[in-house]
Amino acid sequence: MKIHGQAYRTIWLAQDGWRVCVIDQTRLPFRFETVTLSSSEAAAEAIRSMVVRGAPLIGATAAYGLALAMRADASDAALEAALSLLGATRPTAVNLHWALGRMRRVLTPLEPGRRAEMAYSDAALICDEDVALCRAIGEHGLGLIRAIAAERPAGKTINILTHCNAGWLATVDWGTALAPIYLAHDAGIPVHVWVDETRPRNQGAALTAYELGAHGVPHTVIADNAGGHLMQHGEVDMVIVGTDRTTATGDVANKIGTYLKALAAHDNGVPFYVALPSTTIDWSMSDGLRQIPIEERAAREVTHLAGLGEDGEVHSFRVVAPGSPAANPAFDVTPARLVTGLITERGVAPASAEGLARLFPEQARGAAA
Amino acid sequence: MKIHGQAYRTIWLAQDGWRVCVIDQTRLPFRFETVTLSSSEAAAEAIRSMVVRGAPLIGATAAYGLALAMRADASDAALEAALSLLGATRPTAVNLHWALGRMRRVLTPLEPGRRAEMAYSDAALICDEDVALCRAIGEHGLGLIRAIAAERPAGKTINILTHCNAGWLATVDWGTALAPIYLAHDAGIPVHVWVDETRPRNQGAALTAYELGAHGVPHTVIADNAGGHLMQHGEVDMVIVGTDRTTATGDVANKIGTYLKALAAHDNGVPFYVALPSTTIDWSMSDGLRQIPIEERAAREVTHLAGLGEDGEVHSFRVVAPGSPAANPAFDVTPARLVTGLITERGVAPASAEGLARLFPEQARGAAA
Repeated sequence: MKIHGQAYRTIWLAQDGWRVCVIDQTRLPFRFETVTLSSSEAAAEAIRSMVVRGAPLIGATAAYGLALAMRADASDAALEAALSLLGATRPTAVNLHWALGRMRRVLTPLEPGRRAEMAYSDAALICDEDVALCRAIGEHGLGLIRAIAAERPAGKTINILTHCNAGWLATVDWGTALAPIYLAHDAGIPVHVWVDETRPRNQGAALTAYELGAHGVPHTVIADNAGGHLMQHGEVDMVIVGTDRTTATGDVANKIGTYLKALAAHDNGVPFYVALPSTTIDWSMSDGLRQIPIEERAAREVTHLAGLGEDGEVHSFRVVAPGSPAANPAFDVTPARLVTGLITERGVAPASAEGLARLFPEQARGAAA
Repeated sequence: MKIHGQAYRTIWLAQDGWRVCVIDQTRLPFRFETVTLSSSEAAAEAIRSMVVRGAPLIGATAAYGLALAMRADASDAALEAALSLLGATRPTAVNLHWALGRMRRVLTPLEPGRRAEMAYSDAALICDEDVALCRAIGEHGLGLIRAIAAERPAGKTINILTHCNAGWLATVDWGTALAPIYLAHDAGIPVHVWVDETRPRNQGAALTAYELGAHGVPHTVIADNAGGHLMQHGEVDMVIVGTDRTTATGDVANKIGTYLKALAAHDNGVPFYVALPSTTIDWSMSDGLRQIPIEERAAREVTHLAGLGEDGEVHSFRVVAPGSPAANPAFDVTPARLVTGLITERGVAPASAEGLARLFPEQARGAAA
């Protein structure tokens, strides 16, 4: 998407054709800086320190990290060392291991002399595939926005609420939940986004607000507490969020607080959609509330916040009474009964086992077997 | 209640018997400091600058401000000047005008020579009445906590979720929503409070956490997003919140985000109670969602936060992407259908016109007339 008029992906090859450039997401939203990676060690460090984040972007960075390794030394030993180094950066990231596994299968049978070129080529393919996947999700979601716009007076702004960041900064381009919004905006449909700040880590206030603002999409940041009130007063036409894991029955794990917005949407007749690549569907699970493990993160994410101080520098501040403990469950599960539809790369499915099986019959069959 | 073992009210007479002491709430939770007021001007400034806040405490401070004025000059002109000065501090505060109106009626007929003594006496009475009111709310709420404890295994902790600050710091003592919790704790019932941080102004993380911690009540601060997840997993036994205005039909206006917690409580079968002195019931209103005006506050409360920096000082810092606008509705309305009961000084009423009329027949009749 665009940053103040210039088109970007979150990862790209430098002018020299071999080094890899990424946006330093630890500096957003207060600074826009890029980092140039020239070794697999640098790529691993960028993943570990969250210079890059978001499952698809982590996978793409690991793939290019392997290409950088092969350019320096394409021996079997160097390949194994790089796979091991990059695989250890974020142990729970599914896309990371998927991307590295795919590259291993492609590179291992090749002679060392051909590995670097093939690694660059496959890393580029992984990026392009992610862009195509997000774009397809965007097209299907755009249909939903168009349908809502058709029910409103011509030119009326469509208000869409989102939670956390499922935008292009988490992928290579387009994003998942935000892809339909970018497509609608670029197509001239007047859209406005209510951006939940998404405490405790504020990915909405920081990243979603940043990327929408930089591309020029009208938006307003709100406290996570405000969405229900806005829905009660007809200020929200639809909700679109992302997901970290969806069960085969359509239960959706996403950033903590998503469930509260789904309840409010249901109570006020507001359509509640979840955008996801089918790779985030866990075909082995049928009961999200009982089966999906919820990560408990550090209390400090609740008690302290990072922000821009009066001195123009980013600092950490305490916002909770000293001595008071804090709890920090990072995700919650929204039951399928509260989800209007799942926006996937193959189309929009009802949030049910039948709905998902109709779009992904080969997967559903495999899971049932 | 207690602050680290010592009993306090939020307002009291100094040792000299005429000056007035208050806790400086602008310094909480990072500093505990008291301020001594020796003139009506100082009392007015304390209200205006939010050294004292919370409707009942504002009323009590204004009453003592008038006593300080009468001690300096008890003429008719001085009385009118003090009423005007104190009345202009927080124009929308109902208790402020109620307390000043009451004092005016008491003092005006008196000879100037008797006014100071009577003003001190009536200010003390206003404080004692507020304490008695909150204590009565606490006793009725305690009955609900006892009933829940009786259904649990002996000694099992009762987990209570609250939103914003309806504690003793907003009143003279006890508070409203927190009064039942203090009474239960002091009675030896094991209670634990989930404290919603309550963005954007963080009254939960700052004030509720502070006062519970200082009195020794076990509690845990959570992001406003977390309550639904905790209810889904059986971690919340009941919710108790305060209210700024309740309709004659039981709709409840309270701090933004209250409605989302009521929805989650309803979805998970968790009892949802609202604690209120009957003075906050608006007998003229029957539809909270349509009739209660919702204050829209400054965007800066969303984009910036006050916190304790690494240098040990309190600073303001930005947490939202620069250039992104923010919206800040300060309250929302929870429909009566989501409220299990209203805890008043006369007992617990169903959240309905019939329920309230049964407890307050004289008020309900007056409104219907």
